[in-house]
Amino acid sequence: MDLPTQYDRQNIIAKIIRGEIPNHTVYEDDQILSFMDIMPQTNGHLLIVTKRETISLLDADPEDLTNLIKKAQKIAQIMQVYFKADGILLRQSTGEIAGQTIFHLHFHLIPMKNDEKIKHHATEMADAELLAKQATDLRQLLN
Amino acid sequence: MDLPTQYDRQNIIAKIIRGEIPNHTVYEDDQILSFMDIMPQTNGHLLIVTKRETISLLDADPEDLTNLIKKAQKIAQIMQVYFKADGILLRQSTGEIAGQTIFHLHFHLIPMKNDEKIKHHATEMADAELLAKQATDLRQLLN
Repeated sequence: MDLPTQYDRQNIIAKIIRGEIPNHTVYEDDQILSFMDIMPQTNGHLLIVTKRETISLLDADPEDLTNLIKKAQKIAQIMQVYFKADGILLRQSTGEIAGQTIFHLHFHLIPMKNDEKIKHHATEMADAELLAKQATDLRQLLN
Repeated sequence: MDLPTQYDRQNIIAKIIRGEIPNHTVYEDDQILSFMDIMPQTNGHLLIVTKRETISLLDADPEDLTNLIKKAQKIAQIMQVYFKADGILLRQSTGEIAGQTIFHLHFHLIPMKNDEKIKHHATEMADAELLAKQATDLRQLLN
């Protein structure tokens, strides 16, 4: 398996969780953090991560997975309305060959529209002000 | 949203759950069924579905999602060893634009190998004997 055997505490998501890198937070509790992807594949693309040090689906705490998938559903429901999405892709990659580039467990939620082309991952930075507004709006809708 | 508003009891997964179409079962309990995809994107591609009539992530019962993701993890762990996978992709599509073709909630688990090319979905039938053997082996490993 193309996975690090040891969790790297310097990965970008670890730094985001520790607050060393800022993020556009959509949801946060003791176990879970959700934030806008700054290089989104579509407008509205966001990530949901466990706060616990976890490399992938394989080593995840089952209770974290439970919290994560329930929250993913709630965010997807809000996302669908807010972005007027025609579809939503949920994706989690384990290992480089599957597309994992950051070795901290994260689920992608990617809203899709019939008239919007999906980009390759991590090709273009989104506008920070737009992401901030979207995160604020989604956070309010989740409450 | 490109989703049917009413659950269609004649979709293929509904027929599989009712036993009207045979499947290569990897796991089954009262809530969840997992079986080999007969038109796999890679060798070992399988599906995990809720038994409850559910169109997508959006209308899923939260407890079903919990059962499903926990089981997906266990199956992924077994799959990784059995198929000597270098990576695993977990994917769930809501709506046609996201790739949903059967409107009953299903999660894909797709094992990936560095030397195997991933196929487009539903292009080629897999060998039924091979799928039967893989399902039997995975089922035993899960016990």
